[in-house]
Amino acid sequence: MRLTPWRSLPVVQKLAASGNPLARRSFLKLGAALSGGVAVGTSLDNSLGAAPGHAEEAAPPADAPWSQSLGAGVVDRPYGRPAETEADVIRRNVPWLTAGTQSSVSFTPIQNLSGIITPNGLFFERHHAGRPDIDPDQHRLMIHGLVERPLILSMKDIMRFPSTSRIHFIECPANGGMEWRAAQLNSLQFTHGMIGCAEWTGVKLSTLLEEVGIKKDAKWALVEGADGAHMTRSLPLDKCLDDWLVVYAQNGEALRPEQGYPLRLIVPGWEGNINIKWLRRIKLGDKPWFSREETSKYTDLMPDGSSRGFTWLIDAKSVITFPCPEKPLDGPGLYEIRGLAWSGSGKVRRVDVSDDGGMNWRSAILHDPVLSKALTKFTLEWRWDGKPALLESRAVDETGYVQPTIAELRKQRGTNSVYHNNSIQTWQVKPDGSVFDVQLA
Amino acid sequence: MRLTPWRSLPVVQKLAASGNPLARRSFLKLGAALSGGVAVGTSLDNSLGAAPGHAEEAAPPADAPWSQSLGAGVVDRPYGRPAETEADVIRRNVPWLTAGTQSSVSFTPIQNLSGIITPNGLFFERHHAGRPDIDPDQHRLMIHGLVERPLILSMKDIMRFPSTSRIHFIECPANGGMEWRAAQLNSLQFTHGMIGCAEWTGVKLSTLLEEVGIKKDAKWALVEGADGAHMTRSLPLDKCLDDWLVVYAQNGEALRPEQGYPLRLIVPGWEGNINIKWLRRIKLGDKPWFSREETSKYTDLMPDGSSRGFTWLIDAKSVITFPCPEKPLDGPGLYEIRGLAWSGSGKVRRVDVSDDGGMNWRSAILHDPVLSKALTKFTLEWRWDGKPALLESRAVDETGYVQPTIAELRKQRGTNSVYHNNSIQTWQVKPDGSVFDVQLA
Repeated sequence: MRLTPWRSLPVVQKLAASGNPLARRSFLKLGAALSGGVAVGTSLDNSLGAAPGHAEEAAPPADAPWSQSLGAGVVDRPYGRPAETEADVIRRNVPWLTAGTQSSVSFTPIQNLSGIITPNGLFFERHHAGRPDIDPDQHRLMIHGLVERPLILSMKDIMRFPSTSRIHFIECPANGGMEWRAAQLNSLQFTHGMIGCAEWTGVKLSTLLEEVGIKKDAKWALVEGADGAHMTRSLPLDKCLDDWLVVYAQNGEALRPEQGYPLRLIVPGWEGNINIKWLRRIKLGDKPWFSREETSKYTDLMPDGSSRGFTWLIDAKSVITFPCPEKPLDGPGLYEIRGLAWSGSGKVRRVDVSDDGGMNWRSAILHDPVLSKALTKFTLEWRWDGKPALLESRAVDETGYVQPTIAELRKQRGTNSVYHNNSIQTWQVKPDGSVFDVQLA
Repeated sequence: MRLTPWRSLPVVQKLAASGNPLARRSFLKLGAALSGGVAVGTSLDNSLGAAPGHAEEAAPPADAPWSQSLGAGVVDRPYGRPAETEADVIRRNVPWLTAGTQSSVSFTPIQNLSGIITPNGLFFERHHAGRPDIDPDQHRLMIHGLVERPLILSMKDIMRFPSTSRIHFIECPANGGMEWRAAQLNSLQFTHGMIGCAEWTGVKLSTLLEEVGIKKDAKWALVEGADGAHMTRSLPLDKCLDDWLVVYAQNGEALRPEQGYPLRLIVPGWEGNINIKWLRRIKLGDKPWFSREETSKYTDLMPDGSSRGFTWLIDAKSVITFPCPEKPLDGPGLYEIRGLAWSGSGKVRRVDVSDDGGMNWRSAILHDPVLSKALTKFTLEWRWDGKPALLESRAVDETGYVQPTIAELRKQRGTNSVYHNNSIQTWQVKPDGSVFDVQLA
């Protein structure tokens, strides 16, 4: 059989002659502004004639240069990288947010992502003394304190223990922190980009603690990173024994340096800061250590002047990722609203979506797999009539917890919070399709 | 609170003095050759004294240079990359296997990977005319033939349709092809590396076909790539309408160029070649097209001289990824055997593991999530006594299909096969812990 070249196919010839731009049904029918959704000229469509401004789009997919030549060989990129045309899909920082770039944060471009897995190259970073480059052969994990048999483990030792792989999100508790002050950078990347979700592989912390033997007075664990910040946090031992992991791999491959290479802690569903990177020490004790990062930081100043401490849990949260400020609408028509939801308490049970600022809600479709303490994708078909709209999503988790409004959160927490803003995000859609970050009174 | 520096901790001082190398229990107790699994010197362990050759390992995790300085800033790598020390974890090709590198294959280093997600940078490649670099703004998908309303769609159009995300493996049917000839390159990467598993996001093909309207005589679809090879395959329409996806994203981000950027087909559970990359055309017809890639290639020459054609399904298969030739054993002791299993027919139901070449079997642990037509991780604790062993894994899928031995497959297929070798892999473990690719009579 000989395949007919594109340019001589009858339908393509008709198309070139008629230049018919109109798509006919559902998503295409109503998407009048769709740039390339052109119907090939058939008897059904010829009567519609050509539409101004779209004729050039009617050109068939010609044999482009890349269809007429040999491409690059398989050894060209032994470790791959994205297409050059995706160069704007990168992590970004907010220069004014921190004094320098080493104790700072970069944000995941979630406006560009699909699905629940965050690729390693785009997973947000939060460092307190920059990203160290550690020699894995020299790295050790020490486990001591109130244990029967203190140990120092090499990476080789740790990798020999029984392994576990789990898909979990990590969210910095300061995600949305700028929104507490209504900074409104008008960017999904900056309002919600301190989050990522990956498949983590490592050893259950309970396995390691069984190895060292827990003394009966032990109630807390101190965990410490090997970076210059010596990041340290105190954690209750019962949670350590539940589902914590000491991991060496992320999405199949070794952790990236900025994610804690060669070893980090994963504390499913708890604030990112606790997921200590470059993990080098676990010490058991009978009380918390009150380290700098759980006293002067990562606490919440309440209206009465007291501070909430040890606020580890990430409560249920969600956000619409399309449309968003970076991804506006392209004229009235039928759209799929897309978003992500998550909860540190377990699985997402339901996500509701509103287009009128929370007066009316419809339940979205949750996409499989819906995993505990992982991002969950939701979608909902939505017909935009071209009028102003206020889009919101509201997650409900398996405990029945309902994501609150910012007003409800402020009632509890006052006006001095930095962390744990899990409030409903409102996107204002303007008649021209542009999308803005707003807060409703 | 002021944290005590490592070097002055009492346990570390004791350790430096005693240099005690012995780990005490389970995985460590029996892992005498573990290089760094050293017990910190306590009263329990001091009596054991120092062991020759391990004293240098007893040094505590000192404050390395990376713990005493600031690391790199967050804007240093807007798109991340692996640690320099992971530079050997790359895709590789077999130079003698193909005439050049453009119609060739690179293999995933599955011996280095953990979990079920293959990172995009390491996902195997199979090109027939090299990797084209396509401008996504110019790329079009044409759907025509026996349809009511032929269409040409831009990437923007396609991304507007309702989206679906799914985790599925892709395996080249030639994976294990060299093993048909017992080439035995003694490498897991080369015996089983033409596989990967990712979260794919795109549009159901059924949604697109609903858009164009299927004429009643349509029974087959021709799918074509935009690369110089114009890769084309014929596919039965009922399967197209079942679970096929036209995808633009892999593991969250846009497809990589070598994986079909900006658009490819995902045919869950069917041979890799059908998962057309750089997808530019879908034509419906009433019979197959018998293209080059489904006649002279991707068919199986049988003992009677006939050819099996249209052998799309990937039957149940599994392989032990640790130990393997690239990851030998480190002396007698307790180990976790690790591996991957998959089936194009659905979920993996069970994986059995043998250490005596298939005479006795034990069932392995399957790790969640066990997803349909996706890689499934399995593990099994195994105590190696230091004697020769023949390690094998055998997958059983939800249809009851049992992965065959190479001898069983040869009985059916004869000696001229290239594709669809899903036979049980045997790893021979020698007393020194080295691992070899062997075939049992």
